[in-house]
Amino acid sequence: MPNQESALNKVFHALADPTRRAVIQRLGEGPASVKDLAEPFDMALPSFMQHLRVLEDGGLIKSKKKGRIRTCEIRPKELSKVESWIADQRTLWEARLDRLDTYLTDLQKGKSGG
Amino acid sequence: MPNQESALNKVFHALADPTRRAVIQRLGEGPASVKDLAEPFDMALPSFMQHLRVLEDGGLIKSKKKGRIRTCEIRPKELSKVESWIADQRTLWEARLDRLDTYLTDLQKGKSGG
Repeated sequence: MPNQESALNKVFHALADPTRRAVIQRLGEGPASVKDLAEPFDMALPSFMQHLRVLEDGGLIKSKKKGRIRTCEIRPKELSKVESWIADQRTLWEARLDRLDTYLTDLQKGKSGG
Repeated sequence: MPNQESALNKVFHALADPTRRAVIQRLGEGPASVKDLAEPFDMALPSFMQHLRVLEDGGLIKSKKKGRIRTCEIRPKELSKVESWIADQRTLWEARLDRLDTYLTDLQKGKSGG
């Protein structure tokens, strides 16, 4: 599978979970420690860490450890890939709808003209 | 879980697979029969149908049967939800980067002024 495809699989998979989306949303406000990120969730820390690993594996966040504190931050680039993919699809179907619209308008004109 | 969250889970999950993304891409060009959609894939028809069910469950496509032919078409609304979610995240982090930028510029001005 090409790398780009594999990357999109991972990013979409990472975003298919409400906890992981909430983490992305929180990190949009700025970097945070794992402890602070985990705080709002009623979840055992190992389970929460697993969510962070999926986000990191998808390239959506990066983390670094300083002393005993691990801090996470967002990596907007991968989210942009998802955004581009969806924008490409939109371009495709909007172009088709435009063509359909033109066709129907022409048909209508032909009708009123004839 | 609120409905909106559950819907996003399903849409992101549906898009986390290259076959399903290829189907969305194909349907961007216009409706197609299941047979035509399945044609490019080296996959048993039941497996392919399962992919279509995931897309339909995520609200990304709809299908109708006429005689013996089942035709699928895209439903752009759910893709728009994903697009909005990502756009919201981008707004958040861009606002933060702007604030950071302003802060650093002010700091720099203070430095050269003093």
